[in-house]
Amino acid sequence: MNGTGNLMDFLDEPFPDVGTYEDFHTIDWLREKSRDTDRHRKITSKSKESIWELIKSLLDAWSGWVVMLLIGLLSGTLAGVIDLAVDWMTDLKEGVCLSAFWYSHEQCCWTSNETTFDDRDKCPQWQKWAELMTGHAEGAGAYVLNYFLYVLWALLFSFLAVSLVRVFAPYACGSGIPEIKTILSGFIIRGYLGKWTLLIKTVTLVLAVSSGLSLGKEGPLVHVACCCGNLFCSLFSKYSKNEGKRREVLSAAAAAGVSVAFGAPIGGVLFSLEEVSYYFPLKTLWRSFFAALVAAFTLRSINPFGNSRLVLFYVEYHTPWYMAELVPFILLGVFGGLWGTLFIRANIAWCRRRKTTQLGKYPVLEVIAVTGITAVLAFPNPYTRRSTSELISELFNDCGALESSQLCDYVNNPNMSRPVDDIPDRPAGPGVYNALWQLALALIFKIVITIFTFGMKIPSGLFIPSMAVGAIAGRIVGIAVEQMAYHHHDWIIFKNWCRPGADCVTPGLYAMVGAAACLGGVTRMTVSLVVIMFELTGGLEYIVPLMAAAVTSKWVADAFGKEGIYESHIQLNGYPYLDIRDEFTHRTLATDVMRPRRNDPPLAVLTQDSTTVEDVETLIKDTDYNGFPVVVSRESERLIGFVQRRDLTLAIKNARQKQDGVVSSSVVYFTEDAPQLPASNPQPLKLRRILNLSPFTVTDHTPMETVVDIFRKLGLRQCLVTRSGRLLGIITKKDVLRHMAQMMNQDPESIMFN
Amino acid sequence: MNGTGNLMDFLDEPFPDVGTYEDFHTIDWLREKSRDTDRHRKITSKSKESIWELIKSLLDAWSGWVVMLLIGLLSGTLAGVIDLAVDWMTDLKEGVCLSAFWYSHEQCCWTSNETTFDDRDKCPQWQKWAELMTGHAEGAGAYVLNYFLYVLWALLFSFLAVSLVRVFAPYACGSGIPEIKTILSGFIIRGYLGKWTLLIKTVTLVLAVSSGLSLGKEGPLVHVACCCGNLFCSLFSKYSKNEGKRREVLSAAAAAGVSVAFGAPIGGVLFSLEEVSYYFPLKTLWRSFFAALVAAFTLRSINPFGNSRLVLFYVEYHTPWYMAELVPFILLGVFGGLWGTLFIRANIAWCRRRKTTQLGKYPVLEVIAVTGITAVLAFPNPYTRRSTSELISELFNDCGALESSQLCDYVNNPNMSRPVDDIPDRPAGPGVYNALWQLALALIFKIVITIFTFGMKIPSGLFIPSMAVGAIAGRIVGIAVEQMAYHHHDWIIFKNWCRPGADCVTPGLYAMVGAAACLGGVTRMTVSLVVIMFELTGGLEYIVPLMAAAVTSKWVADAFGKEGIYESHIQLNGYPYLDIRDEFTHRTLATDVMRPRRNDPPLAVLTQDSTTVEDVETLIKDTDYNGFPVVVSRESERLIGFVQRRDLTLAIKNARQKQDGVVSSSVVYFTEDAPQLPASNPQPLKLRRILNLSPFTVTDHTPMETVVDIFRKLGLRQCLVTRSGRLLGIITKKDVLRHMAQMMNQDPESIMFN
Repeated sequence: MNGTGNLMDFLDEPFPDVGTYEDFHTIDWLREKSRDTDRHRKITSKSKESIWELIKSLLDAWSGWVVMLLIGLLSGTLAGVIDLAVDWMTDLKEGVCLSAFWYSHEQCCWTSNETTFDDRDKCPQWQKWAELMTGHAEGAGAYVLNYFLYVLWALLFSFLAVSLVRVFAPYACGSGIPEIKTILSGFIIRGYLGKWTLLIKTVTLVLAVSSGLSLGKEGPLVHVACCCGNLFCSLFSKYSKNEGKRREVLSAAAAAGVSVAFGAPIGGVLFSLEEVSYYFPLKTLWRSFFAALVAAFTLRSINPFGNSRLVLFYVEYHTPWYMAELVPFILLGVFGGLWGTLFIRANIAWCRRRKTTQLGKYPVLEVIAVTGITAVLAFPNPYTRRSTSELISELFNDCGALESSQLCDYVNNPNMSRPVDDIPDRPAGPGVYNALWQLALALIFKIVITIFTFGMKIPSGLFIPSMAVGAIAGRIVGIAVEQMAYHHHDWIIFKNWCRPGADCVTPGLYAMVGAAACLGGVTRMTVSLVVIMFELTGGLEYIVPLMAAAVTSKWVADAFGKEGIYESHIQLNGYPYLDIRDEFTHRTLATDVMRPRRNDPPLAVLTQDSTTVEDVETLIKDTDYNGFPVVVSRESERLIGFVQRRDLTLAIKNARQKQDGVVSSSVVYFTEDAPQLPASNPQPLKLRRILNLSPFTVTDHTPMETVVDIFRKLGLRQCLVTRSGRLLGIITKKDVLRHMAQMMNQDPESIMFN
Repeated sequence: MNGTGNLMDFLDEPFPDVGTYEDFHTIDWLREKSRDTDRHRKITSKSKESIWELIKSLLDAWSGWVVMLLIGLLSGTLAGVIDLAVDWMTDLKEGVCLSAFWYSHEQCCWTSNETTFDDRDKCPQWQKWAELMTGHAEGAGAYVLNYFLYVLWALLFSFLAVSLVRVFAPYACGSGIPEIKTILSGFIIRGYLGKWTLLIKTVTLVLAVSSGLSLGKEGPLVHVACCCGNLFCSLFSKYSKNEGKRREVLSAAAAAGVSVAFGAPIGGVLFSLEEVSYYFPLKTLWRSFFAALVAAFTLRSINPFGNSRLVLFYVEYHTPWYMAELVPFILLGVFGGLWGTLFIRANIAWCRRRKTTQLGKYPVLEVIAVTGITAVLAFPNPYTRRSTSELISELFNDCGALESSQLCDYVNNPNMSRPVDDIPDRPAGPGVYNALWQLALALIFKIVITIFTFGMKIPSGLFIPSMAVGAIAGRIVGIAVEQMAYHHHDWIIFKNWCRPGADCVTPGLYAMVGAAACLGGVTRMTVSLVVIMFELTGGLEYIVPLMAAAVTSKWVADAFGKEGIYESHIQLNGYPYLDIRDEFTHRTLATDVMRPRRNDPPLAVLTQDSTTVEDVETLIKDTDYNGFPVVVSRESERLIGFVQRRDLTLAIKNARQKQDGVVSSSVVYFTEDAPQLPASNPQPLKLRRILNLSPFTVTDHTPMETVVDIFRKLGLRQCLVTRSGRLLGIITKKDVLRHMAQMMNQDPESIMFN
């Protein structure tokens, strides 16, 4: 049955490393898949031989689930540890707990006995630095001292973070999502998901977030989870030796990462499906879901938020929304789209400047400078001083009757006798107006500083800053609508749904809608965004406002450019990523893209039975192609197969060392049988074993849109072009990407790897 | 750029029907996609010409969203109407509302003024038939009369249903999901999603459900939604003229169908993705979600359940679950898997018998007989008399303090002073033991009758009966565990989590877990199942029990056979469905599968410049192949392209009618230029326009697993096989399916269509 069955030389046992890939190269999905099927077949047929083999085959079948379980456990644990550490270190910038220095502000006052609800923030055990050092809690001197120490701690944390990244694991910087997308699409970046990266990223993530920079931990958590996935892959040869199977595990790990970042397992799976994964079979869907759930429950049992809630921002609203409110929601969507466009353009421009100018040479200095500016500007404003996730949480929440926050400083009706949850609209007090000013300043500050922060050489996520921008804008709009409705009950638009004394506007909902819109504008997530938000609130009630904002934001942002922030960074870095969503609509044909071009030297081919070892070695030395087509003869140009450069090099090296009689003048045979040569001739070298007998071919008339489709769906590395049976040329993934860049009037040379 | 540019005869304007498909044929996804890109290109380039064209192009871009909106609105409305009609007609079997005969029992008593909670079921306006006709509500005579009329109404409804299906729309029977899966995978069944089918399926679905047969409306609702989708496709030529694009709309419609069936929009989208769809690009994901949401909200605004809840079975539990409970949950999973296996095997065996014996000739009689048996056996048992969804709803719900149902007849502690929601475990009263017996009988009855019901010639869904089986089993187990925990507080397993006076076991949760397990065993849904159940309860709390049961059930069922009920029915009917989930693991090569086989006549090919019109006509008459490869010459066998039979027939017919000088001896040219012939020779016929210049080829050494992968991922119809540039044979989708059947030791001739 198998055509290669009767050529069983020394090559019968594959020599080491055959079929592996070099760093910064693209994998061949079809080949990986068929290698896995071979392995599976071998195990299945062996399993009938003995009990031990049967057990081994069962273990093999279960290894996928074991890996998922381990990923869920480890990424959940790491997320919990990161949350706890960030809490503590963020508070360390302001003060310390006297009863136990490893307690955060909240934990410190929890354990205090004298605490009642009202002064929970002001328990005696927790002392600000000025109070501890000088004994004075109030006054200008204490303020300046606290200010100074706040900036100093921030600088210390960020300096540590950037130094650790620089010295130990340069891959630990950034959010990691662009690179993970590229890796999942079938690219090799060795070490990107390694143990060192895992360790350093976890530590520096804590430092970076604690330093108060405008960044989040959500994107990096995906990277951390993928590192866990990669780590556990190495336990099973099924995954460690097959780059295709490994990517299935990594897809699931990405889902676990988002699951712990937000406490949203379903949203995490959809995020992995929609945003980061390339090849996502249904089996992976189910396993991803398992990993995401295990991770979420591990995180919950660690209980870092101290409330046994699964989600990051738990909210519960008490009033429904009204049709007329769709207008401000859609306006928030427009804002989100504009913010997305602005952010992507400005951030990419800044990152390009960093890459091309002197700026890129001083990453430590850059981080220190940005941290300094952030800390100096953030301290005076209470909304930027605290951690961004606390800020978002406060903005999302509705004002209860007992809420002490400035944002809830409404003028209360003294003879109010309603239940706590149902508070009618009230006029805003001075605290609210004050808060609005501070929020407006915080908004401008966040918008500007985030552009400069994302892309620095420290771990930095984008979800939280984007959500913060949206939440601030949303809350401002929400309060404006609320006050308008209170003061103008008689306006036509308010008449129907907002009678006096009713609780008709929920500013917290506006903040949530704004956050979704801004996140959508930056990342262009759609379903996963809405599902994550849905899991945060846990009710289908608010899915229409969220969806309206998400759709608007995507449409507005798409009108200015189709690419989200991750795709833009992929392009900036020139990764060979063939986006599954891009539509290729040009009328070019395979013949326009294939190499050699008209004036190029002819295609480098091998013949099946007339090339010597020396010829092959010269060809390998003179060219840098990743593989060579094998033809019947140079005259007929009929295609036989395709041989990988790496396999060829290894095979010849191996043969020269181990096989007697193979010399430079030996003829290389790719045919089924080598002819019987006289003894005087050098021993032939039979290499049919490494020849791919089923190379992918298209005709020269194939439209490029079909070729792009084939590359995407089958995950090809290269494809040969024929015309009526004759080999004409070759199209590699890099050629396809270059062509696509050219068609979009971009520089084709920006595609760097292959 | 375009190679066909300089051959512009009369064929420049495509003649009607070129590029369409015949009934019961498979579409070519790649071709459909490239046709759509062409169309899109044309519109984009035209849009720059005038304002009107620009508006047209914008309308075209928005048409997808418009179609989704319309699908959501119509399928939501239809689902609401069906729900209302089923409610009314189910109650009509028992009695009638005196104040307004079109009210259901519940509506009738709602509108009654004298109603209090306790006797809501017994308002004077609602009269049972016996009471209305004889004046006696009680007694043996009244019972017999009610019994008789119940059976009579059931027979009437089911007779009407089966007759309407037989006479007007034979495609309206069954659940429709196997056929929709096949259609979505690229098969043409004309009329299956037509207007008549929509109308008749909607009407007969109401009749079938009301007749009290053991069937549900969920599967057929997917069919109804897909019919809506197909209907709205015809509004836009973008969808009506492109079978590929049409299928994108149908995928979204399927999501909308499940969304209204359960009130679970996210679950609906995942169901479409996981279970029914074949080609599901990300754009479709987003649009499906939109359609599913619109449908769900339309249904809610119709409010058929009278409680403004979105979901079919709304439940809220008040106690958490404990680790030890995982044991009974997993046992329920095992039960679900066994039930799935039993049901699939028995149902397929019965359906096969129906197909092959005399039984199949009397569908009306069969329906009447099964309805009669169902009604006669169902009436005496209160749990089978009522509608299945009411039964499930009661089983899912926890016993409140005021619950009057038999299932909640616990012995109450008289000096109980707790809030209503928090009831400690109590000893079961006589009502509960009575209910347990009746439930056990109902379980056996449902198991047996469902096997015979599914597959009859009426609309019949499987979700509700499967869930009912699971819910009954689960509730029985739940009550058993509860009573065990109450009476044996001191057992080690109960000691830690179930102190006396605590409310530790929720029998309703067991029912829900059992329902998920049984549904999973039958359909082999995974993620979508858990998500649908999650949307029903609305809390992540119970996702672990659900998941444990679903995983166990799938593993147990898979151990007996990989196929779910839908795949089994697809196979039974011989549809050409290439399952995306099947792993092909055999070591065969393309050369083993391709045609012609060793002893067959040679491959029927056309040559590019030496075949006459008569030769072509003879070839078309003598063979029934769907297309012919075109080669340079019979000697060289170098492949040029592929031409579809249908296009060829149409082109020759067209040319003979319209082009002067084309006679039987005219030579057909597939080359770029036909030679200048002397005037005496007959006019040549140039057919390069209909030649597919980029046919898909693989080498004869390509492993079949790769070929299967290519067929699946690219949606090919056929693929040509070459060896070193020479055409050897052809592999069609049917050949692939036959080969797969053969490898699984099934009858290859069971694949009927191509």
